[in-house]
Amino acid sequence: MDLQAYLASQRVLVDAALGRLLPTADERPGKLHEAMRYSVLAPGKRLRPLLMIASAEAVGGRAEEVLTAACGLECIHAFSLIHDDLPCMDNDDYRRGRLTSHRVFGDAMALLCGDALLALAFELVCRTAEHVPYERVVAALQLVAQATGTFGMVGGQVVDMESEGQDVDEATLTFIHSRKTGALITAAVVSGALLANGSAEAVSDLRRYGRHVGLAFQIADDILDIVGDEAKLGKPVGSDAKSEKATYPRLMGLDASRRRAAQEVAEAEAALAGFGPEADPLRAMAAYIVERDS
Amino acid sequence: MDLQAYLASQRVLVDAALGRLLPTADERPGKLHEAMRYSVLAPGKRLRPLLMIASAEAVGGRAEEVLTAACGLECIHAFSLIHDDLPCMDNDDYRRGRLTSHRVFGDAMALLCGDALLALAFELVCRTAEHVPYERVVAALQLVAQATGTFGMVGGQVVDMESEGQDVDEATLTFIHSRKTGALITAAVVSGALLANGSAEAVSDLRRYGRHVGLAFQIADDILDIVGDEAKLGKPVGSDAKSEKATYPRLMGLDASRRRAAQEVAEAEAALAGFGPEADPLRAMAAYIVERDS
Repeated sequence: MDLQAYLASQRVLVDAALGRLLPTADERPGKLHEAMRYSVLAPGKRLRPLLMIASAEAVGGRAEEVLTAACGLECIHAFSLIHDDLPCMDNDDYRRGRLTSHRVFGDAMALLCGDALLALAFELVCRTAEHVPYERVVAALQLVAQATGTFGMVGGQVVDMESEGQDVDEATLTFIHSRKTGALITAAVVSGALLANGSAEAVSDLRRYGRHVGLAFQIADDILDIVGDEAKLGKPVGSDAKSEKATYPRLMGLDASRRRAAQEVAEAEAALAGFGPEADPLRAMAAYIVERDS
Repeated sequence: MDLQAYLASQRVLVDAALGRLLPTADERPGKLHEAMRYSVLAPGKRLRPLLMIASAEAVGGRAEEVLTAACGLECIHAFSLIHDDLPCMDNDDYRRGRLTSHRVFGDAMALLCGDALLALAFELVCRTAEHVPYERVVAALQLVAQATGTFGMVGGQVVDMESEGQDVDEATLTFIHSRKTGALITAAVVSGALLANGSAEAVSDLRRYGRHVGLAFQIADDILDIVGDEAKLGKPVGSDAKSEKATYPRLMGLDASRRRAAQEVAEAEAALAGFGPEADPLRAMAAYIVERDS
């Protein structure tokens, strides 16, 4: 399959939906809505929505059924970036070559913008009840909430922060990575399958796929922070090393990290053995995740 | 009825449930969980959970059915206080006589603690599906999400912030109050009735009750910031005037504000005309909301 064409067309679908679903600057408070749109509609991979849609399609669902929830995941991703960039966190001025939210709108507005996006995300998942049985909506929402909070992204972020400058073992590194980025990626894949009425067996296979893809994604991110092209990434490289973050390259070196990422991709693909060509986008995305340059 | 005895016994129920439902410092990341418990378990009125439970009881439900969701509302309330107190917002050192979250745990941890509490809140509402039909759970989730985000608390907070030092008219003031505090209070009342299987008519009456009680609560808060006892409030009074916040006393003076609060309470009570003694706790709480001294 032509992955690039597939990804591009799905991104158009997601971006159009995000444009419709986000509140506009005409509505009060306009400045907040401007800030929400500034971050969410910024150019990006839309990885989590695309994984959710591909997962729904892998179990026989249609993109339209999960599109609103997929947009919710992008809101959660944007919320996490806005809060991560704040002065009390990483204090970053740029993200993908554009000024970060607090540099444009101020710290207070950026904080509240993140909060509003997180609340909106849950509202968007609820709205999939137009297409999906209520029981599935609640199951997906619960997964996404867990993947966002202390047993997911936020918890991973805290341990990541606490580990700066420390010698961490692989168990701690896996803890950080599986939660900081892995949890929401896995939730995207699993909830996509749940919302599209996937069988318990398919959901279980896709959970395994999601875990491996999530870990591969974070290792690839860590590698890009060392060898990436600043122009393509839109941010300075070397920031992990500067703040002595716990990363795979730091723990085991660059070559071993690359092998580990490739191994995770292979395991992700193996988890899809029971699926036919309907899972080709998921297969291609697993490979893309470690080959990307931004 | 003996409102104080009722409130005290319901608070014991809510506090015990919160103690069980919040993650503990034994689980990783312990410091985050300590911060979550520090803020949520701090002494407080538990107004939103108590309103939710009283509303469920008013339509014939049992406290146990909505207790987990009620705890979720308290998590949202705590999240909003933690973020409001941050240096980039109100920069408050004390809340109810105790150091604020960021003064104890640092700005980054307080930010993430708020985020984790918001995510946990939605997970807790999901868990009511043990007792409640899924359709009702989704409806309650959607209400709570709307009441939290830009069309609720966060949006009200933004307009409140933008109005500091400005001359605001009553329409703007009502916009701020109905969203900043009113939305979540109304959501507590309405979702309590929804989760307890209340009829459409009962839910509609209770929505009216919630709106009036929410506005009365905020006017009473504004008044306490002028005439309150610092020892009882656990914080300095006069902070609204100092930061030139939009308040009812600022717009119409203290006496007219008191009359307006009393009128809102009367309207809240009128909305309960169709209910019998099962709504007595709601009636008593409406009166208590403007008579309280903290």
